[in-house]
Amino acid sequence: MKKIYNPERNTWSEILKRPTQTVADIEGTVLDVFKEVKAEGNKAINRYTKKFDKVSLDSILISEEEIDKAKQLVSEELKEAIVLAKSNIEAFHAAQKTDRISVETTNGVSCWQEKRPIQKVGLYIPGGTAPLFSTILMLAVPANIAGCAEIVLCSPPDTEGKINPAILYTANLCGVTKIFKVGGIQAIAGMTFGTETIPQVYKIFGPGNQFVTVAKQLATKFGVAIDMPAGPSELLVVADDTANASFVASDLLSQAEHGKDSQVILVSTSKELISAVEKEVTSQCDVLPRKEIAEAAIANSKLIYVENDKEALELINEYGPEHFIVCVANQDYYIDNIMNAGSVFIGNYTPESAGDYASGTNHTLPTNGYAKQYSGVNLDSFMKSMTFQKISEEGIKRIGNAIEIMAEAEGLQAHKNAVTLRLNSL
Amino acid sequence: MKKIYNPERNTWSEILKRPTQTVADIEGTVLDVFKEVKAEGNKAINRYTKKFDKVSLDSILISEEEIDKAKQLVSEELKEAIVLAKSNIEAFHAAQKTDRISVETTNGVSCWQEKRPIQKVGLYIPGGTAPLFSTILMLAVPANIAGCAEIVLCSPPDTEGKINPAILYTANLCGVTKIFKVGGIQAIAGMTFGTETIPQVYKIFGPGNQFVTVAKQLATKFGVAIDMPAGPSELLVVADDTANASFVASDLLSQAEHGKDSQVILVSTSKELISAVEKEVTSQCDVLPRKEIAEAAIANSKLIYVENDKEALELINEYGPEHFIVCVANQDYYIDNIMNAGSVFIGNYTPESAGDYASGTNHTLPTNGYAKQYSGVNLDSFMKSMTFQKISEEGIKRIGNAIEIMAEAEGLQAHKNAVTLRLNSL
Repeated sequence: MKKIYNPERNTWSEILKRPTQTVADIEGTVLDVFKEVKAEGNKAINRYTKKFDKVSLDSILISEEEIDKAKQLVSEELKEAIVLAKSNIEAFHAAQKTDRISVETTNGVSCWQEKRPIQKVGLYIPGGTAPLFSTILMLAVPANIAGCAEIVLCSPPDTEGKINPAILYTANLCGVTKIFKVGGIQAIAGMTFGTETIPQVYKIFGPGNQFVTVAKQLATKFGVAIDMPAGPSELLVVADDTANASFVASDLLSQAEHGKDSQVILVSTSKELISAVEKEVTSQCDVLPRKEIAEAAIANSKLIYVENDKEALELINEYGPEHFIVCVANQDYYIDNIMNAGSVFIGNYTPESAGDYASGTNHTLPTNGYAKQYSGVNLDSFMKSMTFQKISEEGIKRIGNAIEIMAEAEGLQAHKNAVTLRLNSL
Repeated sequence: MKKIYNPERNTWSEILKRPTQTVADIEGTVLDVFKEVKAEGNKAINRYTKKFDKVSLDSILISEEEIDKAKQLVSEELKEAIVLAKSNIEAFHAAQKTDRISVETTNGVSCWQEKRPIQKVGLYIPGGTAPLFSTILMLAVPANIAGCAEIVLCSPPDTEGKINPAILYTANLCGVTKIFKVGGIQAIAGMTFGTETIPQVYKIFGPGNQFVTVAKQLATKFGVAIDMPAGPSELLVVADDTANASFVASDLLSQAEHGKDSQVILVSTSKELISAVEKEVTSQCDVLPRKEIAEAAIANSKLIYVENDKEALELINEYGPEHFIVCVANQDYYIDNIMNAGSVFIGNYTPESAGDYASGTNHTLPTNGYAKQYSGVNLDSFMKSMTFQKISEEGIKRIGNAIEIMAEAEGLQAHKNAVTLRLNSL
């Protein structure tokens, strides 16, 4: 871990720099798969499933039988945990529903804004050793509350042509309408263009490796929206002497185990805490199954000592962490003034893993400094706001002349005429 | 105008197809300008201003003197119109403020969502013959209500090094913090990287030609967000015998005068209305100053006859128009069931130009079918939502075990440890 004491402000951007992600070299591969899936549909999907996932499938659509089998394979204990998490996530996202906003801006000029669901959404869930069923909760639950009519899920099959039962159980529980055994670039291409069996969707959500990330970027060039730009996961903890060094270390490690490129930062006004956390990290890391990954991430992590809370806050706002844990006496100062963070975890009993699974907040959050301008996934991510206006004869009399003058000043005579004709008829 | 009667459903996608925008051939130019602005700052900005705008400037920052002069040059009549429009836009966007959403998802587990302003935003306003001061109202007014600390505006200078006074007057009125005489690709690059004088921003808004469009797309690869993907403006009118053919024609033409690539569609259950509108378009078009542009757009426009409202609605939802005018007896059917549209204009006295200027709704709207998944610009476009959670000792006891089980099932032992350590301490 790199310890940095009282860094000069002009060194902040260097200290807080994230490693550059270079993806350009795989763009060609991704574009090829897109072209083939667009032209050949399922035939190309199957070819790439065989190539990348090493399996040939008779059908890519998950059947009711497969769902039923999965339900039997998931332990009761895990089912109960998933149901509890789902209930909290539902409660928090259902509360995000907004009413129609209606304003009579001038007598006779009624304007309103309403949110309506995106009709078709696609969720991508990676495969591999860690089955991310928790991400299904985070995406399918709000999609359902929003009222999306079609919720498609793609996840890669293993070499036996199967998907982890916890993924199937959770997807079924959360109202996913169709589940496909398709992964990687071909899954994103399939949802972008549609195939004989995979529906074309309007927006694609979910994490993935760099191939999936580049494929999602490419999908935006073909009229599909995506949840947000992806980057390695991040955690910044601000802690002082009131924090528990052992808890802080466990949070840093839970971030570090995600990947060797995970970003882990501790900012503190206490040199004692920094030393204590450093020791705890070393001892806790030793017993982790994913020790090798965590060690690599921890090696790049930073412990930054600053003089006071003001300095700490400014540095944190400049970084814009995805996850931000606040374990300090003066917690309100950070809660009230943090401007750039994805999700904020407050106090000694709020580990980041609570938000990853079960507190109710969403774990799909902006990384790479995007907390400065992007929201994490929330109910609105599955809706779009539309505006309506209805103007009466009185209304057009009141605002018509202003429209005529402005349209004329912008050189748009037909815009003016549309009003003049109406005013002349009254 | 192309008249189409009772089109078969399998021909809809062909009929509703928008012309493909090809932009790849200018990506190289745009990338070059970006590289140079990043490396050289103002020096590169000035070089490109000389090259593209044919003018050399001592200073690109608009001075107080220039603002004062502009105020004198704008007519009182236009000022009053702008102030009236601003008041309506303010009323409608201020009403979009949302309260903190707070839920105790489980006893001891408090979650809340708050929106905070994007701190630095950039607005791009094109120059040329039509000074789009109305777009400043649509962007700077909500940016101010959101509380964005820095609102930067870039607009190209004319060959005398000046910006249209209506643009300067409106920008100043709406609280833009800095105005720069910089246009085109170099303006977008300047706001993306920052220069000695232009602040780096987190999100860029506003319309522009294809160079600006490609530059905004490229900006997203350098960590900047943009309002939405751009495309030619569109209008779809649904009208029946209760509509006024002359009004409908004037609305179609007000869309057509935007550009030769503007998309204009009339859908109707009345053959009589279709004939009447066609005649009105021809006679009204003749007297327009932008007749040549409007005629080109009208030549590609479509008049589509369908049997009934259900058919019409389905066709309209498949198209997803930017602007949607409803002039029918059964208007509630369309209002309640339209799923994909940017902004909806209802009744005979609600011309599209009302929303372009003064009703209060925003005129920066999704084109090219993006109404299926994107919102038009609204107050939230200038904010991001952040989540917070605070868990008590009781709270972690209640949800801790579920987190442990889920983390273990996902193979993330350190995530589990972060909870186990806390539970063991209680």
